[in-house]
Amino acid sequence: MDKLPISDVITKIQSMSGWTVEEERWLVKKFRFRAFLQSIDFVNQIATLSEEENHHPFINIEYKVVTLRLTSWRAGGITSLDLQLIEKYDALYEQMSESAQ
Amino acid sequence: MDKLPISDVITKIQSMSGWTVEEERWLVKKFRFRAFLQSIDFVNQIATLSEEENHHPFINIEYKVVTLRLTSWRAGGITSLDLQLIEKYDALYEQMSESAQ
Repeated sequence: MDKLPISDVITKIQSMSGWTVEEERWLVKKFRFRAFLQSIDFVNQIATLSEEENHHPFINIEYKVVTLRLTSWRAGGITSLDLQLIEKYDALYEQMSESAQ
Repeated sequence: MDKLPISDVITKIQSMSGWTVEEERWLVKKFRFRAFLQSIDFVNQIATLSEEENHHPFINIEYKVVTLRLTSWRAGGITSLDLQLIEKYDALYEQMSESAQ
């Protein structure tokens, strides 16, 4: 899978919320939660998905804030798989937000 | 709980393995695992302990490497609680390493 032109990536994430590109190769977003254990619950869901897809984001947990960073190492940049996965991350977060209401 | 003199902290961690001090306020260590899901298992154990103690490290998961960063915000540095907790983190890691053999 080839890396995408960065202009394509930026066009795509402009229709989404909170995602940024760093160093032209990382898709980055901070997810905020009401409690630490919600952060952990989210991380576990991301972990399960990552194993299924065999594609793993870097995960940073700062109490109630989880930052995900995703890239395709082999492609040396961002691929269509990365763009598919960040939509799934957002969907998992959305589900958690709905169930918390 | 007051922050400890940094010399006391350094003396303490010299008897341990892998811990360093950053910016005179963070205790930092990288833990390595054989598989991504072992990283996640460790993070879940750290999370449970953190809730019990109501004291939460920053947690970074880079595939098979988990980095923990601990400080006492109110004290503005490292306290005896932090030093107690890093011993518990090491014990959890040790238990996982033993059970993996």
